[in-house]
Amino acid sequence: MNKNGDTVAAAVTNLDLHDIARLGRTYGVKAFYVITPLDDQRKLTHRIIAHWVAGGGADYNPARGEALSIVRVKKTVGDMIDEIRSRENGAPRTIVTSARKPGGSVSFGRLRGILREGGPYVLIFGTAWGLSEEFIAAADYRLDPIEGQANYNHLSVRSAASIVVDRLIGGWREQHQHIDKVE
Amino acid sequence: MNKNGDTVAAAVTNLDLHDIARLGRTYGVKAFYVITPLDDQRKLTHRIIAHWVAGGGADYNPARGEALSIVRVKKTVGDMIDEIRSRENGAPRTIVTSARKPGGSVSFGRLRGILREGGPYVLIFGTAWGLSEEFIAAADYRLDPIEGQANYNHLSVRSAASIVVDRLIGGWREQHQHIDKVE
Repeated sequence: MNKNGDTVAAAVTNLDLHDIARLGRTYGVKAFYVITPLDDQRKLTHRIIAHWVAGGGADYNPARGEALSIVRVKKTVGDMIDEIRSRENGAPRTIVTSARKPGGSVSFGRLRGILREGGPYVLIFGTAWGLSEEFIAAADYRLDPIEGQANYNHLSVRSAASIVVDRLIGGWREQHQHIDKVE
Repeated sequence: MNKNGDTVAAAVTNLDLHDIARLGRTYGVKAFYVITPLDDQRKLTHRIIAHWVAGGGADYNPARGEALSIVRVKKTVGDMIDEIRSRENGAPRTIVTSARKPGGSVSFGRLRGILREGGPYVLIFGTAWGLSEEFIAAADYRLDPIEGQANYNHLSVRSAASIVVDRLIGGWREQHQHIDKVE
């Protein structure tokens, strides 16, 4: 959505590609799909990836190419689902994120447990002013919003993705058990 | 440091200001200090902040100005420490972060407990290729690196700051206790 709540195609942001690919690669995520219906935005995204995976960037910083090699570019969410279905063991379950608490949302702890049971899952983030209400309602799971300590909740998609991925599949669990011992 | 391990002054990145200010504001952090010895970089940083706090950006997106109002700009770490000492209850303890595990590092769980005891703390992140070894050795605390699931650890400073702040002062603790119940 844009600022006024209209459903729009947001522009692809260069640093979203880099940051979320690096995050995904660090946490062992299989693929990072960038979805945009705009042909020129998909073409631009492919050019950025090629620079780091095979072009001048590959020599300058090979680790960056290793991260960007997990990025896949699709026109629609349906195209992504089809590709995952053909590569994995059945169609993926969809998980949407939002800064506002949607009806019937699931906690981070609960979803962490569900993910451990296996099977393909896609975690979906919206840019601009977030995913549309219809899209959120149609997903298999709606994740609780991230709540900080303050009466303010306007994280970038780069920060939100980092925190959500760490909470759902990060290795802080053992570290947390340590807290219980010291307190 | 730069890629070759030389100590350098890295350029300030616009999205670092936005993302880390939004993160800090969401988690109730008192201030986000941007340290650079370069006069033109400090001037540029002040201009960016002014645009969102008082200029055209303040009308377009007031929430962004609310975040950027926590940013403070200093020439040196010493200037930052002096300012915090004069505003808070004594000098702050320094905590440094690194993608490589430094000697004598402290776990996230342990540091979370320490922070709860109160007193000013500064959490320090380096851009470019990270903080220098001398700087890391001189800090009061060295935090464990973030470890994902894969044999790769090249997060952006925006992702690293998001994950570290969430682990140290985020509200996922109660959610985690819920995991213990379901498992």
